[in-house]
Amino acid sequence: MKPNGPKVVALGGGHGLYASLSALRRVTDRLTAIVTVADDGGSSGRLRRELGVLPPGDLRMALAALCGDDVWGQTWRDVVQHRFRTQGDLRDHAVGNLLIVALWELLGAGAADAPGGSTVAGLDWVGRLLGAHGRVLPMAAVPMDIVAEVRGADPARPDEITHVKGQVACAKTPGTVLGVSLVPADPPACPEALAAVEDADWIVFGPGSWFTSVLPHLKVPALARALTATRARRAVALNLAPQPGETDDFSPQTHLEVLRAHAPDLSVDVVLADDGVVDDPAALDKAVQEIGGRLVLADVAADDGSPRHEPARLAQAFYKIFTD
Amino acid sequence: MKPNGPKVVALGGGHGLYASLSALRRVTDRLTAIVTVADDGGSSGRLRRELGVLPPGDLRMALAALCGDDVWGQTWRDVVQHRFRTQGDLRDHAVGNLLIVALWELLGAGAADAPGGSTVAGLDWVGRLLGAHGRVLPMAAVPMDIVAEVRGADPARPDEITHVKGQVACAKTPGTVLGVSLVPADPPACPEALAAVEDADWIVFGPGSWFTSVLPHLKVPALARALTATRARRAVALNLAPQPGETDDFSPQTHLEVLRAHAPDLSVDVVLADDGVVDDPAALDKAVQEIGGRLVLADVAADDGSPRHEPARLAQAFYKIFTD
Repeated sequence: MKPNGPKVVALGGGHGLYASLSALRRVTDRLTAIVTVADDGGSSGRLRRELGVLPPGDLRMALAALCGDDVWGQTWRDVVQHRFRTQGDLRDHAVGNLLIVALWELLGAGAADAPGGSTVAGLDWVGRLLGAHGRVLPMAAVPMDIVAEVRGADPARPDEITHVKGQVACAKTPGTVLGVSLVPADPPACPEALAAVEDADWIVFGPGSWFTSVLPHLKVPALARALTATRARRAVALNLAPQPGETDDFSPQTHLEVLRAHAPDLSVDVVLADDGVVDDPAALDKAVQEIGGRLVLADVAADDGSPRHEPARLAQAFYKIFTD
Repeated sequence: MKPNGPKVVALGGGHGLYASLSALRRVTDRLTAIVTVADDGGSSGRLRRELGVLPPGDLRMALAALCGDDVWGQTWRDVVQHRFRTQGDLRDHAVGNLLIVALWELLGAGAADAPGGSTVAGLDWVGRLLGAHGRVLPMAAVPMDIVAEVRGADPARPDEITHVKGQVACAKTPGTVLGVSLVPADPPACPEALAAVEDADWIVFGPGSWFTSVLPHLKVPALARALTATRARRAVALNLAPQPGETDDFSPQTHLEVLRAHAPDLSVDVVLADDGVVDDPAALDKAVQEIGGRLVLADVAADDGSPRHEPARLAQAFYKIFTD
């Protein structure tokens, strides 16, 4: 399909977005990632607290996923993904995180940045360094916090519904996550992200941590409006397995129900699921039809038994979806 | 003179080497910097202690000096030179230092590296990123410590001669530095550096901190032998002012005498000095002739009154020297 290909916008964060981008960059040259900026753990959390910037980790992973398969791309991918394994000041910092925040400092970006502006310019510079096959944008122009509504966050009171704040705490809660919202509730969106959504041929949701990486975009009001209003078609790539903590015991249908609960006006054209992990294809097909879409079952899982997508197979599935 | 130009090897470290490289990259495309690796202060010192690697700071500055004048070169120069100004873990770390040590970790380099090898490969990768107009190599394959013989290191005993260890301590001693040596005394040299010296048309010593950046190369035995044996011509670029701590009250002649004391067998073809700062040209001319060279006086200082070389003027002076 390359060169050119459809204009695709992929939404998510972390390893899930890494998987979708690793596949999508093989299908199209016109690719934009819109990335969660709510991480508060690890290297990203420390940088966010120390420097007052957007947490860079999910942005870095998206940029790494867009690196090419040549020596240049693979070397710089390894460099930006490299973490210092020491007991000292640098412990666990990912090199790409440091590079991104350096560009932001240099260009004058930060939490008080005008929406878009230097934040996007800094990411574009890192993208140019890497020879990235696409563009990476934040879902909002300010650092966000995820707040999850959780039943049984305290195992001693299994029926109580409480709020859990922070991406790390939400991902790890022993309770059942019912839904997420964001603080601040109406952050400035990234204008370049809104424009990419408006201009897209396809929007891809997931795979990824459902509550902390995939759904947060729908809680940025301006972005949610753009995602609902765009003439682009919308595809949802389901996860290969429930995620401990966030989505224990979730069926594929439950993922779609939760998506719908967070964005009642959003229609979905295609739902992609791996044919080896769907226990009840008829039930899933029914759920997909209820949200106005069609179900595509394909072999997209890696052979190693891990719940990871195999990039070439996922690329093939996306290719079929985009050209059908 | 570019493209091509003479094969030039520049020796030094820190701001002095930055000045000579900023000039030399305008004169030739075949440029190699051989850089002091004895820093034990600041970001470099912390990385050296935390990760057991060569101190990267002088290597980084040399790479930055080799960046081009286009937007790519100037942006990445600013990125690698950028320091995090925080009170946290990252305080004062230069981004380029982190990038260099990340490449080293990734490629398996370190203090126990085979001479050359991954250390050089890592520097070459950063050079490729920057589009560097030349190559940067370490003067030795292991981290070094400078030991200075100092008279009056303790102001209470002005005539006592003692040893001061470490680049920071040597640069700051209130006493008079008489000479320097290295620990370890016979480090593994960098094979690529020896080859560059052997193959060069010109070797350029200085400007720079005389005892802690310019002379250390002459105390790496294998490198000193190569510098003496090479058929390349040798130029010495003198500093524009004595350096507080290291070379208070040093005349230009004293700089040459000290150089000679550290490398008695080294002949010098040209000594370059700024015509505005030499008080006694006849005395300097005599000193230069004594070491077998000719004196070139030129206007190479910046106009702002600082003891810094102006790159374009220094480039013009080198051009004349190389083509005379």
